Amino acid sequence: MSKNGASGTGGAPRVVIVGGGFGGLYAAKGLANQPVDVTLIDRKNHHTFQPLLYQVALSVLSPGEVAAALRHILRKAANVRTVLGEVTGFDLDAKEVTLSSGAVFAYDHLIVAAGARHAYFGHDEWEAEAPGLKTVEDAVEIRRRLLLAFEKAERTAILTGETPPLDFAVIGAGPTGVELAGAIADLAKRALAKDFKTIDTRQARIRLYEGSPRVLGTFSEHSSRKARQQLEELGVEVLTGSFVTGVEPGRIKVGDEWSRADVTLWASGVAASPLGKALGVETDRAGRVVIAKDLSLPGRREVMVIGDMSSLTDANGTQVPGLAASAMQQGKAAAENILRDLRGQAREDFAYHNRGTMATIGHHRAVAEFGGRSFSGTLAWLLWLLVHILLLIGFRSRLAVLRQWIWAYLKREGASPLITEYQFRDDESEPGSR
Amino acid sequence: MSKNGASGTGGAPRVVIVGGGFGGLYAAKGLANQPVDVTLIDRKNHHTFQPLLYQVALSVLSPGEVAAALRHILRKAANVRTVLGEVTGFDLDAKEVTLSSGAVFAYDHLIVAAGARHAYFGHDEWEAEAPGLKTVEDAVEIRRRLLLAFEKAERTAILTGETPPLDFAVIGAGPTGVELAGAIADLAKRALAKDFKTIDTRQARIRLYEGSPRVLGTFSEHSSRKARQQLEELGVEVLTGSFVTGVEPGRIKVGDEWSRADVTLWASGVAASPLGKALGVETDRAGRVVIAKDLSLPGRREVMVIGDMSSLTDANGTQVPGLAASAMQQGKAAAENILRDLRGQAREDFAYHNRGTMATIGHHRAVAEFGGRSFSGTLAWLLWLLVHILLLIGFRSRLAVLRQWIWAYLKREGASPLITEYQFRDDESEPGSR
Repeated sequence: MSKNGASGTGGAPRVVIVGGGFGGLYAAKGLANQPVDVTLIDRKNHHTFQPLLYQVALSVLSPGEVAAALRHILRKAANVRTVLGEVTGFDLDAKEVTLSSGAVFAYDHLIVAAGARHAYFGHDEWEAEAPGLKTVEDAVEIRRRLLLAFEKAERTAILTGETPPLDFAVIGAGPTGVELAGAIADLAKRALAKDFKTIDTRQARIRLYEGSPRVLGTFSEHSSRKARQQLEELGVEVLTGSFVTGVEPGRIKVGDEWSRADVTLWASGVAASPLGKALGVETDRAGRVVIAKDLSLPGRREVMVIGDMSSLTDANGTQVPGLAASAMQQGKAAAENILRDLRGQAREDFAYHNRGTMATIGHHRAVAEFGGRSFSGTLAWLLWLLVHILLLIGFRSRLAVLRQWIWAYLKREGASPLITEYQFRDDESEPGSR
Repeated sequence: MSKNGASGTGGAPRVVIVGGGFGGLYAAKGLANQPVDVTLIDRKNHHTFQPLLYQVALSVLSPGEVAAALRHILRKAANVRTVLGEVTGFDLDAKEVTLSSGAVFAYDHLIVAAGARHAYFGHDEWEAEAPGLKTVEDAVEIRRRLLLAFEKAERTAILTGETPPLDFAVIGAGPTGVELAGAIADLAKRALAKDFKTIDTRQARIRLYEGSPRVLGTFSEHSSRKARQQLEELGVEVLTGSFVTGVEPGRIKVGDEWSRADVTLWASGVAASPLGKALGVETDRAGRVVIAKDLSLPGRREVMVIGDMSSLTDANGTQVPGLAASAMQQGKAAAENILRDLRGQAREDFAYHNRGTMATIGHHRAVAEFGGRSFSGTLAWLLWLLVHILLLIGFRSRLAVLRQWIWAYLKREGASPLITEYQFRDDESEPGSR
């Protein structure tokens, strides 16, 4: 017999939540210590605070500072169990979820919140050369590529006496692309400058490519202009109206022209989790499930689909954006609607509440929009810091990140520029010897 | 032309150091800002503080808290360059070092400090099932195995309603084995106990196997007894006189008998880096290079071999032990002997100075020996904390680790039990469904 009598025989309605991102986690929190038997299933054992992932990629924070074990976050929710496993299918008639291992979980209510991954516009072969940033593993891989590029340039310079060019390309100028480009500039111009003695890391070239006419397309034109200006102050070359047509090792093609790119990062386009299609219902071009205003699957009242993998025009007629904030709000709302069902109350339609949006662009540089007002520069940057500290899940992480940021700010350097799980391969030829 | 005129054309004697562990790093520090042109070559971009690696394996510390980028540690040493690369061979007559890429570095003085890896007594096939703990990658892999074992047991318990047994085996009861076994007990009995709701992690069985008659064989008999007693208080089963004769997935063989082992860790036996043999000189059974009392290779005054990959009976007739402390002392001594050469002074023979040894066994438990006196329990544990904080390289890491320890102590929990780079594989079958 299991420890807490939690084997689900008690008769409480069984809620299965698929995915421990912002949507799934906030749904689980909303159902904590309520008269339901909750099972949260995720392929990872941790929740990832995605808005700070780029700081892991840039060596400012450690993985443990932006991620926390799901079962640790939920340890005080006696009715919530966490299961590490990969959901591969649903039987909506039998009300069952199947894992890759063949295990089956039965539900009375199902919340699917499996998020989104990068999309390469039909060029999946670009992924190996241009990784995106969605998971802790992505961040560690991007960090490795960035630091290795500097290491290789240093080695070449020592061996040949000549400094090779060093080119970084970021594709896509939404918040993630802008944050990555600004942070690479910070890394090259400041954090690493004193560590490398043969090359001058400040000479590195950072280009930000965007197909549309402006950066941060979902922000106001004023914020776009301010963001571009701040990026350029940092030395980032902003190339709007630039469509990437090819990605190969060491170079990318923009329009008809190839450019050198020692490291290419992808921050353009997302596709919903394939679990949307596994539900066997209508999905939009990005693979998102079109849901009803109470967040349920049309015709399946007991199934809710939330966060980045769903598409909804809400009670106010607003298309709900694919942001952490929307997923959190939908997670809470899904939990509330289930509790309303149990109490015999009518469900409420979801209404997205825009509490503001922001993007950071290196030290003392950011743009923010709150209630129709725009901010930029140091004030926006301080707002960004405050909001992200407040949002960080788990008190432990919050303190650790704050301390790390204060330290990085005072020392003007990042945490630990470590490259792990790397050894030079034998096939990496060298330009000479000394 | 390179940034700091560091291309080695200035005529200063060229010192090449192979390996950035304790020996190589202390040699580089000893030569910092002296009239020599130093190149430090390592396969990793970071120095690893090995005495604390087991805390990364047990989720108490993050990788960035026990490792620091070599070029960052050495950033103020204007005459020291750091190269990321794998040394594969030497031409001692031509005075050249060759990397896997084919690049060649010429030297006037060479310090080889490439350390040691685990040895499996001729059973290299055991390594996959019983990883050892030498690198940050090893620590992350061990962490993943330990946490996954708990996750799988929880999932099985949820699906079947019955808690499966959970067995951990540590092979070898030297300081690393004792520390690992004690820390696994801490993890199971305390840190994870509240996070897992279906299984009772405190029921996990931890066995420590040792072929010789006592644990911590290099310590006094009194300390051995105290260590064993403290391990048993923590619930670790200590099995001395137990020779492991087989390691397979899920089980190990001791003598003629197989025992269940969900996770097996290897802390028994080391072998010197194969670079010892690459020097083309006499090595002992463990592959260590037998060196002269001035740390040089007999007949090759300009080549020094230090740390775990060398074997030396020192000026006092003591066999120098394979410890971090000896490697640090040899690194300093190698640098001093090179500087003596330059000043036309005679070299000094190396004499190992035993400043004490210690091993920690979970919270408030340790053994320590200083100047013929033995300590155990809380006092030894506090001594251990103090010494390791003082030894930690780089002020940044030291503060971070101290803060982390205080936090873990107050909260009675570890840092971030994250499993990264893992997804359940399809071939992991499950015992049932619910």
